[in-house]
Amino acid sequence: MQEQVSNYLTEHRERLLDKLNTFLSIPSVSTDSAHQADIKHAANFLETYLKEIGFEAEQLDTQGHPLVYAQYNQAGSDAPTVLFYGHYDVQPVDPIDQWDSDPFQPEVRDGRLYARGSSDDKGQVFMHLAVFEAFMKTIGKLPINVKVCIEGEEEIGSENLYQILQEKKEQFQADFCVISDSGMIAKNQPTILYGLKGFTGIEITVDGPDHDLHSGMYGGAVRNPIMALSHILASMKNEDEVITVAGFYDGVEPLSSEERKLIAEVEGEDYEAATGVPQTVSEKGYTAKEHTMARPTFEVNGVFGGYQGEGTKTIIPTSATAKITCRLVPGQDPDRIQQLLEQHVQQVAPKGVTVHVKKEKLSSKAYKVEPNHPLIKKAAESYTEAFGKETLFIRMGGSIPVVEWIEDIYQIPIVLLGFGTPEDRLHSPNESFPLDSYDKGMETLVHYWTKIQHNEMK
Amino acid sequence: MQEQVSNYLTEHRERLLDKLNTFLSIPSVSTDSAHQADIKHAANFLETYLKEIGFEAEQLDTQGHPLVYAQYNQAGSDAPTVLFYGHYDVQPVDPIDQWDSDPFQPEVRDGRLYARGSSDDKGQVFMHLAVFEAFMKTIGKLPINVKVCIEGEEEIGSENLYQILQEKKEQFQADFCVISDSGMIAKNQPTILYGLKGFTGIEITVDGPDHDLHSGMYGGAVRNPIMALSHILASMKNEDEVITVAGFYDGVEPLSSEERKLIAEVEGEDYEAATGVPQTVSEKGYTAKEHTMARPTFEVNGVFGGYQGEGTKTIIPTSATAKITCRLVPGQDPDRIQQLLEQHVQQVAPKGVTVHVKKEKLSSKAYKVEPNHPLIKKAAESYTEAFGKETLFIRMGGSIPVVEWIEDIYQIPIVLLGFGTPEDRLHSPNESFPLDSYDKGMETLVHYWTKIQHNEMK
Repeated sequence: MQEQVSNYLTEHRERLLDKLNTFLSIPSVSTDSAHQADIKHAANFLETYLKEIGFEAEQLDTQGHPLVYAQYNQAGSDAPTVLFYGHYDVQPVDPIDQWDSDPFQPEVRDGRLYARGSSDDKGQVFMHLAVFEAFMKTIGKLPINVKVCIEGEEEIGSENLYQILQEKKEQFQADFCVISDSGMIAKNQPTILYGLKGFTGIEITVDGPDHDLHSGMYGGAVRNPIMALSHILASMKNEDEVITVAGFYDGVEPLSSEERKLIAEVEGEDYEAATGVPQTVSEKGYTAKEHTMARPTFEVNGVFGGYQGEGTKTIIPTSATAKITCRLVPGQDPDRIQQLLEQHVQQVAPKGVTVHVKKEKLSSKAYKVEPNHPLIKKAAESYTEAFGKETLFIRMGGSIPVVEWIEDIYQIPIVLLGFGTPEDRLHSPNESFPLDSYDKGMETLVHYWTKIQHNEMK
Repeated sequence: MQEQVSNYLTEHRERLLDKLNTFLSIPSVSTDSAHQADIKHAANFLETYLKEIGFEAEQLDTQGHPLVYAQYNQAGSDAPTVLFYGHYDVQPVDPIDQWDSDPFQPEVRDGRLYARGSSDDKGQVFMHLAVFEAFMKTIGKLPINVKVCIEGEEEIGSENLYQILQEKKEQFQADFCVISDSGMIAKNQPTILYGLKGFTGIEITVDGPDHDLHSGMYGGAVRNPIMALSHILASMKNEDEVITVAGFYDGVEPLSSEERKLIAEVEGEDYEAATGVPQTVSEKGYTAKEHTMARPTFEVNGVFGGYQGEGTKTIIPTSATAKITCRLVPGQDPDRIQQLLEQHVQQVAPKGVTVHVKKEKLSSKAYKVEPNHPLIKKAAESYTEAFGKETLFIRMGGSIPVVEWIEDIYQIPIVLLGFGTPEDRLHSPNESFPLDSYDKGMETLVHYWTKIQHNEMK
């Protein structure tokens, strides 16, 4: 049965690629209202294709761009139901002159398909639909029940998604979720992303005098807000890159030796070459890879206060501000972390100034799934069968809000099946996707759905 | 004779104020090249006015803004010659939305003249010229010979002044110097400034990654430049407001008990009311008055790095910069202080970043004159006669580089006749000058020039 499906994909490869190119040709740039019609066009493409395959499909209106919802429930009541999430909107193409071919006229060069969205996320969404088609056109049914949720606002922060996920809880509810909107650690290196960091932040403003003061007249009488802010910031992370806010690490599970081994096995990026820093630094007791992948971080994203122009202005400024965000790991609650940060700041605030803390509204918890969860193990096996290589398990420092939202609302396991490669240039000129990964990725999905069918859920 | 002159000022008060307003209406902001024509306009105003009064006047070109030079030598060869220094350029007006009236449309409210430059220094410069006019139009001559030097670059560090003062040594040479670019300790409290602080500064730039990094991908692998800068700054002054740079206080003479008494006698400003801070802070062991007047200071005037916009941008920024200036007291050498600051910064700079220190070019030593010098005593008497109050003798935290330069090049006594008040908001929105001080200040000058005429020099 599996072979039949695979053969179908091989036989219909050219036609399916043409269809993908049609999808990629639609400039569904979500940030730009000039592309309103293209957004609608892309949503229509998906709705039509899903109906062709045999899904019940519709577009759900939002305050922004429509969300394409579809479902297939003919696999039988004993078959598991998957919620498949993806997005059909794409990033803007600027700077357009840095593209070697038109971003919306897909072109194959050296085995890569060049087009905006080829990797993020239209290409990966299309792979799923093509695999569903292959099942339907060969064995006449899908091995699993499927709910499809493809939004058009991912590149603008999924503004309306959380509300829809809540409102449509009953309709969207599934046994587990699959998302293909990420990548592998290297081309042809099957990778399971089993952890993402959570996220929170605060903004600290130190208010001193009610106007900028002449440093000659008042220097020696008032606290300098920039100096006060510097003392506050310096008290929050030490030179060993250890965050010195009381309680910050509470509940963080120690990094097990197995996980350290998993991380060590990942061929990491050359951080110095990629960033231009004279040397890497990371939390005492942890490698840079361990810290970026699996330990919480604290970064000052911006600071400002007083005079920033050329030359000198001898003032004591009225205020100084720092913007801070943290990446969190499992065990850390964003609300509590914000509270701890605020408490710390107020405790160390020196006299003579007033300190305000503004809390970031969009916080999220970290996501982690057990690498030996049956759904994850089946995914790893499917990868290995399709790519002919052992699957690596990694955690990443980034955050994908939708992952936390789905976990939060639906309380189901989430499997991140990414097929992108580090060379795909997401969000940049010359975005591309290797056709090799396209073929092997679909092969992986054929294996996966077949295995899941026979898999005992939970 | 003195009365005639005073009467003239009273009779022509309105017309003279109109003329001052014309001068203040010219936005001669020296930092901004967009105001090039305004700078020229202001210099022309002065040249024309000085010629009207009977001076030989000219504009000396510099590499930057022109310097207005004028001389009057009809007082006779036995009369002393004074070098009068002032500046016609003004500070920028940002943040413009905090002004209650247009900074360049002078407006009188509650007895104060609101305009950028009303106190610093156009208003005070104008008072001198109006007094010269009054002498010329009444008794037909000035009681003293005068050389006028009014520059257009004071607010950008008097970039070309030192060179001109050296080049024109013969032309500018005088018996003593008078400067009105300072203030009184309180409104209507005649004040002789017998000491000023020196000045120096550095700019610290911390360079990290060669481009802004995604905090999810690289947080944990690289040092955050803002955090590194915060640690550096926090290591330079502690919460007791003691500067913790090794050697910084070397050579500073201890504050004598007599001087502490002099300072205590000065009815100081209500710092909290004037600045809006919740409480004053000053160097441990010194009062706020002692610290501002007679102890060295260290201020961060500005800081910037990374994202400063609305909301959140999750980056590790490529760099962070702090602008620092120090006010120095007698015994401290600016060059050595810069060296100590740089050494300290490089010593505490953490690994993983590169730290650059740029030294401020315009440094100056502190200035101090004997309070019982005859020229000073005459000034004190003139103040007392005009304001009806005993004159106080104070040291101040400000620095006037030109004071040190004139002392250095011309080796003549310098009399600082300041008429500003603590509420003038120099360099800030809503700069103003009390009309009361304007009138009494001119009266003081009438007394002073009359006394000096009869005074034995040296």
